[in-house]
Amino acid sequence: MRKNYLLTPGPTPLPPQVLEAMSRPIIHHRTPQFQAILKEAMEGLKYVFQTAGDVFILASSGTGAMEAAVVNLLSSHDTALCVQGGKFGERWGELCKAYGISAQILDVAWGSAVSPEEIKKRLAADPKIKVVFTTLCETSTGVVNDIEAIGRVVKDTQAVLVVDAISGLGAIDLKTDAWACDMVISGSQKGLMLPPGLGFISSSPKAWKLIEASKSPRYYFDLRKAKKAAEKTDTPFTPAINLIIALNEVLKMIKLDGLEKIFVRHKKMADAMRAAMKALGLELFSADASSDVVTAAKVPVEIDGEKLVKTMRDAYGVTIAGGQAELKSKVIRIAHMGFIEEFDVIAGISCLEKVLTQMGYKFTLGQGVKAADEVFLK
Amino acid sequence: MRKNYLLTPGPTPLPPQVLEAMSRPIIHHRTPQFQAILKEAMEGLKYVFQTAGDVFILASSGTGAMEAAVVNLLSSHDTALCVQGGKFGERWGELCKAYGISAQILDVAWGSAVSPEEIKKRLAADPKIKVVFTTLCETSTGVVNDIEAIGRVVKDTQAVLVVDAISGLGAIDLKTDAWACDMVISGSQKGLMLPPGLGFISSSPKAWKLIEASKSPRYYFDLRKAKKAAEKTDTPFTPAINLIIALNEVLKMIKLDGLEKIFVRHKKMADAMRAAMKALGLELFSADASSDVVTAAKVPVEIDGEKLVKTMRDAYGVTIAGGQAELKSKVIRIAHMGFIEEFDVIAGISCLEKVLTQMGYKFTLGQGVKAADEVFLK
Repeated sequence: MRKNYLLTPGPTPLPPQVLEAMSRPIIHHRTPQFQAILKEAMEGLKYVFQTAGDVFILASSGTGAMEAAVVNLLSSHDTALCVQGGKFGERWGELCKAYGISAQILDVAWGSAVSPEEIKKRLAADPKIKVVFTTLCETSTGVVNDIEAIGRVVKDTQAVLVVDAISGLGAIDLKTDAWACDMVISGSQKGLMLPPGLGFISSSPKAWKLIEASKSPRYYFDLRKAKKAAEKTDTPFTPAINLIIALNEVLKMIKLDGLEKIFVRHKKMADAMRAAMKALGLELFSADASSDVVTAAKVPVEIDGEKLVKTMRDAYGVTIAGGQAELKSKVIRIAHMGFIEEFDVIAGISCLEKVLTQMGYKFTLGQGVKAADEVFLK
Repeated sequence: MRKNYLLTPGPTPLPPQVLEAMSRPIIHHRTPQFQAILKEAMEGLKYVFQTAGDVFILASSGTGAMEAAVVNLLSSHDTALCVQGGKFGERWGELCKAYGISAQILDVAWGSAVSPEEIKKRLAADPKIKVVFTTLCETSTGVVNDIEAIGRVVKDTQAVLVVDAISGLGAIDLKTDAWACDMVISGSQKGLMLPPGLGFISSSPKAWKLIEASKSPRYYFDLRKAKKAAEKTDTPFTPAINLIIALNEVLKMIKLDGLEKIFVRHKKMADAMRAAMKALGLELFSADASSDVVTAAKVPVEIDGEKLVKTMRDAYGVTIAGGQAELKSKVIRIAHMGFIEEFDVIAGISCLEKVLTQMGYKFTLGQGVKAADEVFLK
């Protein structure tokens, strides 16, 4: 017998309602029956995205939705500003490069949030910038960016603001319309508590001007096709039928709790996790911008970070993430996002303490769990 | 209480093993546990594709895999030959157009198979043709093309042969290597008995020469990235984890029966369906190239084809497909592919007879089922 705890920043654990929905016999997608399901999904996504506009559903992982943003907004030789403070920010630059788009890189130290003021300066300095590509929560560093402030500086410029909210949407606040986010991208396997396989993309009227002008070649990810189909409550290509059926179960759960309550729950779990890390003497990777969906902490120098992650997973069934790229073995990343509540957080901290003890790290056993308990008791 | 019968050419019914696998708690994809699953899937796909080469798994529907073929093999201004005998053949032409590729259209009358001799002539006439795009089973017309013969004429030319086998793979014979198919595309929701959401793509060494030379912009569908990742039993982007887990269940079922036996089963179901159509006086849409995975038959002029399909589905729970595009309301298409066996075929025919009777069509009730029974008893 082994219970598994999945505390990774995507995929996140699946609620029983999702497991049940995923196991239903399939139905055909060109039927009134599926049309009703798709309609419900599209409406529910508007609530989660906090937008009055369409949210298109793609059969792809989040990266496919990011590619959709790039090819629909820009043509080769266009200029974009890519905020790059981690592995997923880098993906915007790679995508631009693949499509011959001139990507100006705004390099941000890993562990820090981007300065909206810096974005403002770059936009003022180069009126050719058509799109600003940002990240809500940079999963590789645990950092959350201040999208509201970024929206304020981009809003009255020529540029369109695109936010990769693959990590974070549905778990931390992101007001697509109110914060002037022209395009918000997400995926199914994080805050939305589904298996991977769905990409989501919202679009403002300002974005549509660029979409209609873009000359980048596109077909599967062509949002003009998606929009035309959506007008008839349809998809241009075969949708990921049972993921959309399961999405509706998630949307019901989210509406029942309400976004505000969900955001508060994530904040509390993050506060507890951060308190635990401090109590264990593990420094947060980001001093002042640690997100409420994933906590990155530095691995003590005397501890082998990769072995720590592996032991927690293989000996105890608690899966957390290690560091990626330049952070390999230097940090651990523990997610508290989606279908996760306080006792999952406690289990994660308890397992971390157990393995740290076995690996010879010096600390007072129980201090991490105690610190988290204190937050939850507040 | 209502039992539903899904006799559509994608999605096809899901076996209980798939439903069970889809409902398992999710695991993380960057773990040795998932790596073992991915390895098993990649090996199993080689058996189904009848290839010694890699089969890449994409998180997309089949059209995404078709786009991957186009962008990886060709650059803008290159020339391709697109065999077009139905809605899905047309998709090759549309994809080429989207990417600035000069598509020569080989128009085939809907309901007929393409003549390999004609492909040979076109290739001889234009040595600029780099790729021949074909379709194994054209779902919109029910026609199966003779890929073996096409492979013979393309093999010793400059051109690469691409086969859209989204409909048919795993149900009718397609020997990727032996028939010299340089690239075979498929999807999860037809012969492979899974929900939609996975695209598959094989590639020969001849195809790789074009892949390495292609200048088309690409990222999510870049097969160079897929290959690099596959070498480490990985995927470049988050895979559709639980679809791949379910795929392994299907691959086990397919191996247990063996491809040969599966092809024989599909042939028998198709023979039964064709016999039933004839017995009911419904002319096959294709006189000589009706596939073993989906049967298209003409709707008698006095019968409203759309109403027929709708009544079967909404009154009796038997979902078949109507005609698409120019065939709208003129044909019905009944699939017998994947997790379908003889009594599903009988149920489909029985329901068709029932509704035809109610709609006033003149025929001897029971003749269709009888004709099918006779085939199955052989």
